[in-house]
Amino acid sequence: MRILKSSPKADGFFMPAEFEPHCGTIMIWPERADSWQGGGYAARRAFVKIARIISRSEQLTVLVSSDQYENARAALPSEVRLCECTTDDSWARDTAPTFVKNAKGEIRGIDWGFNAWGGLEDGLYFPWDNDNHVARKICDLFFKDTYCCRDFILEGGSIHSDGEGTIITTESCLLSRGRNPHMTKAQIEEKLLDCLGAEKVIWLPRGIYNDETNEHVDNVCAFTAPGEVVLAWTDNKNDPQYALSAACLEKLENSTDARDRKIKVRLLPIPKNPVCMTQKECEELDLWDGEPTRTPGERLAASYVNFYITNDAVLVPQFGDDMDKTAIDILSECFPYRTIEPIAARDILIGGGNIHCITQQIPTFTI
Amino acid sequence: MRILKSSPKADGFFMPAEFEPHCGTIMIWPERADSWQGGGYAARRAFVKIARIISRSEQLTVLVSSDQYENARAALPSEVRLCECTTDDSWARDTAPTFVKNAKGEIRGIDWGFNAWGGLEDGLYFPWDNDNHVARKICDLFFKDTYCCRDFILEGGSIHSDGEGTIITTESCLLSRGRNPHMTKAQIEEKLLDCLGAEKVIWLPRGIYNDETNEHVDNVCAFTAPGEVVLAWTDNKNDPQYALSAACLEKLENSTDARDRKIKVRLLPIPKNPVCMTQKECEELDLWDGEPTRTPGERLAASYVNFYITNDAVLVPQFGDDMDKTAIDILSECFPYRTIEPIAARDILIGGGNIHCITQQIPTFTI
Repeated sequence: MRILKSSPKADGFFMPAEFEPHCGTIMIWPERADSWQGGGYAARRAFVKIARIISRSEQLTVLVSSDQYENARAALPSEVRLCECTTDDSWARDTAPTFVKNAKGEIRGIDWGFNAWGGLEDGLYFPWDNDNHVARKICDLFFKDTYCCRDFILEGGSIHSDGEGTIITTESCLLSRGRNPHMTKAQIEEKLLDCLGAEKVIWLPRGIYNDETNEHVDNVCAFTAPGEVVLAWTDNKNDPQYALSAACLEKLENSTDARDRKIKVRLLPIPKNPVCMTQKECEELDLWDGEPTRTPGERLAASYVNFYITNDAVLVPQFGDDMDKTAIDILSECFPYRTIEPIAARDILIGGGNIHCITQQIPTFTI
Repeated sequence: MRILKSSPKADGFFMPAEFEPHCGTIMIWPERADSWQGGGYAARRAFVKIARIISRSEQLTVLVSSDQYENARAALPSEVRLCECTTDDSWARDTAPTFVKNAKGEIRGIDWGFNAWGGLEDGLYFPWDNDNHVARKICDLFFKDTYCCRDFILEGGSIHSDGEGTIITTESCLLSRGRNPHMTKAQIEEKLLDCLGAEKVIWLPRGIYNDETNEHVDNVCAFTAPGEVVLAWTDNKNDPQYALSAACLEKLENSTDARDRKIKVRLLPIPKNPVCMTQKECEELDLWDGEPTRTPGERLAASYVNFYITNDAVLVPQFGDDMDKTAIDILSECFPYRTIEPIAARDILIGGGNIHCITQQIPTFTI
């Protein structure tokens, strides 16, 4: 497919919101045993459950290595399209293209630079070259042209769009030293607006405590409709999350969106009890690169905000916590026309993200 | 996609002729250095020329390894879809699915068993497991269901369909000991009719001299229209090809097709001078598995019949031989509404096949 050097905004393309209609979703089969405990078996079971729900209302494409192809094919529903692709891990949100759309219903992919959430500065694995090539390969799979933005490091999990000109992101991530340290905040904002065809960026200061992505926005705050967001929250002032969420709330309450609307903020609790790694879970992670991926007692960045919206459902992480049901209730109110699907998510969270991180939507298109 | 255990014929599916409209073509990027001289460089150049012509009138999908992805992407026209896929070699005709179609315009793939043209009996490489998995992977890429025929060894190059109920094949190949020795000729014929939705098989006795596929039909005889074929031919009775072609001619002259038509046979000369491996070409082939792929002076199975028909062209192998132009003239007469494209094919022939062997058509479909 064509590699475009022009700008999506100049070409009339913009990023639709996740709650707008999808033609499909992309996922990547979990395999690496230093990310996924027990050789990936538990994660694969969780991915399959998610795949079943997604493929109920849209075309799901799962990328898989040659080695795991037959295993994945046997495990996944037959309506899922399975495509071979070499990757470094399974974070489709961060390595698949961000799709943009124009008024004619045409879609194109954006191929951002990817450096494993911080490269040699504070990245999470090395090397990451396969992941950096995934976006273009996916555009080819879908016969779609690609905007080449490889000179700009960005993961899909660090942005949300309301589809009406507003982008939310976090300063902690986008201004991190491991991504685009040569660019000023103003330059980064300009780049986002240009690539996503947007008019306004709302910069939240922080994300979820101990989130190793430098606090991606998709774990702390998400649009549920134009002008409406959910924000991860705790009332416990002794929790390290409190200050982070409070700073985000203050920012949101003092912001308007691209259409000059005040933003309605719903507070979505974080789990009441921190979700922490057990000794056994740590032992089940292979050692690949000199240092263990996790340590016993380590607090994971558990958040109900890391849900994924499909055409007919919202898949919501569950942690076996008192707040599980509260999160479901709040999101049911946000999405009255979708089925709310609770997903036991601990086996995904151990990998370092959640349901939103392992999925990437493809908007409907007519051309 | 679904794996079907039923029969294409029972489901109302049949194999269209190659000269019927295609929605696309599949090729596989040449890489293995024991098949392709000079590390595959010359073959890749030839493949790219072919890709350009095919993609002029239909959607071309090229499969490629992860290692060669970027190189292939840079070399191929941007309108070509490049998809990662692990294979053992580049013979899309033999490892890609045979597509069948029904009256509603729906298409499905057939996943034949593949054992590298003869398995442990007289196969050409080991292992072949990746190639045996290619057909299903391709069906997934195209969102198409697959008939599982892995218990029956067959390569696409060993069959031709007129799209009107007639299949041609060769006894030397389909009755070879390395494929389905547990089946009688009658059982094999029944299987072909069942899988290809056909009514009649015309069994040519032989193929091209020294053709290491056990003499695939696609190198010796091809339909150019319903009721019309071209047959590789030499008038030189001292050439080992003479007896083989004469036996085929006799069979064709004494056969009618599924619609009870006499078959019009056009004789297509083989090259006047045998195409043989040079010392240098042999040296340029890597040694992989104990014995050299080719020996100096070895006669290659050069044939103009190994052409490929696209929506707007016929790609015809050329060998720098006196007969090159004659072949072009005859095929121009056969295909008056297509551009005849001469392709310098020695660098493909060295690999063991020709333009037809490295391509597989996908019929147009509406569902």
